Amino acid sequence: MKQSLTIIKVGGNIIDNDVKLKQLLTAFAKIKGSKILVHGGGKLATQMANDMNIPQQMIDGRRITDEPTLKIVTMVYAGWINKNIVATLNALNNSAIGITGADGSSILAHKRNHPQIDYGFVGDIDQVNTAFFSQLLHQNQTIVVAPITQDESGQLLNTNADTIAQEIAKALAATFDVSLIYSFEKKGVLRDINDEDSVINQLDLVTYQSLKNENLIFAGMIPKLDNAFAAIAAGVNRVIIGEGTSLEALIEGTSGTTIA
Amino acid sequence: MKQSLTIIKVGGNIIDNDVKLKQLLTAFAKIKGSKILVHGGGKLATQMANDMNIPQQMIDGRRITDEPTLKIVTMVYAGWINKNIVATLNALNNSAIGITGADGSSILAHKRNHPQIDYGFVGDIDQVNTAFFSQLLHQNQTIVVAPITQDESGQLLNTNADTIAQEIAKALAATFDVSLIYSFEKKGVLRDINDEDSVINQLDLVTYQSLKNENLIFAGMIPKLDNAFAAIAAGVNRVIIGEGTSLEALIEGTSGTTIA
Repeated sequence: MKQSLTIIKVGGNIIDNDVKLKQLLTAFAKIKGSKILVHGGGKLATQMANDMNIPQQMIDGRRITDEPTLKIVTMVYAGWINKNIVATLNALNNSAIGITGADGSSILAHKRNHPQIDYGFVGDIDQVNTAFFSQLLHQNQTIVVAPITQDESGQLLNTNADTIAQEIAKALAATFDVSLIYSFEKKGVLRDINDEDSVINQLDLVTYQSLKNENLIFAGMIPKLDNAFAAIAAGVNRVIIGEGTSLEALIEGTSGTTIA
Repeated sequence: MKQSLTIIKVGGNIIDNDVKLKQLLTAFAKIKGSKILVHGGGKLATQMANDMNIPQQMIDGRRITDEPTLKIVTMVYAGWINKNIVATLNALNNSAIGITGADGSSILAHKRNHPQIDYGFVGDIDQVNTAFFSQLLHQNQTIVVAPITQDESGQLLNTNADTIAQEIAKALAATFDVSLIYSFEKKGVLRDINDEDSVINQLDLVTYQSLKNENLIFAGMIPKLDNAFAAIAAGVNRVIIGEGTSLEALIEGTSGTTIA
């Protein structure tokens, strides 16, 4: 039997809220088995850019990462946010190590090459170093991943945290029984975007495709769900989408949407 | 026979200079055996504090670390500087992992308790987690340490990089044959502070004490040298003080001061 591995992606809505973050980390520290936490950035990077008068350019909700912005996101994500999460987990008797994709050459990426848009120092993932992750997990370290990677030349790259969580989950599915949890601002995948109580508790591929054909899936959720089903197809045991503040209920399946 | 371990502490004069840093890392990547690099901060933290209008208070050359300053040093040291060194070493085919004393609960510290001066969030080291360092080194990872630690409650603390290098060296001396190198702005310990060619090549405790009694050691060097001899007394094989830009010559003993 494969060892259980829980991978959770925690986004800005929790990172920016000290009380919610502490609550999530306390619940996360209690989960048995191997664990990886991938965190996003939150508002701190934007605040710092404002404080330092570095203009931020967004295209379709994505941050264009010029050189000063790369410096800020590396400092905020890999420095402040990552080390605070690590220190909090350690204090909860859950020994944690914080990494980026540069550390231990854990995630190799390349600078995004888009025909129309220059995203700047943004990375797309080529490879996950599964041996490195496995070794740390077998040493009973919880791994906390900041969304920064590097390319072969040593250039650091700003990289989407959802994608990092998914690529790690897929790469480790061969050796671990992986649950991938997307902590999210909603209670789960909703049948009705205006009704927080319309959470779809279980979603399989057949149901998803028929709901999608009937336009019953909110457009903004489709890329996330397509990725979730791709992870399942690649061997991930289950993907759970829901509120990070109800972590235990998400894992038990009494809250959120479980995709399998 | 114990395995060789080279620990180098690199200070601001090299960190602030991209060309010198790249040169040092290139030489460092070529060293055989296990390796740890401990880096200081350089001018970037002071610059950032200025950019963000956070006043910096120094007492006897030591930075008082209030809360905004702790945030800045954590971001600059553990984020920007640490990850750039790691990415550069990886690109030199020297797999590296960047940590603080929080990661893997590698260095436990407590907030400095001084009778007269409130240093703020400054840490004094209690314990080095030798098992954690040994495991990573045996996995052929070069460890890059940023001068941030944590206490038992999860509070991050700004911690002197010289002290971190020394405490790691002493703790690992039982299992490794440790060389501790202090990269420095001078060519080594000078007989005459005004003459860069007066480097003392070899220094043993008897000679040091007699030179000290004759006032032939520059006062500013005495704490560094006292610490070096304390490291030797604790089992460190040799301590080398000299210019980081001549790393190979330092290791060969043809440059700098070797203390044994």
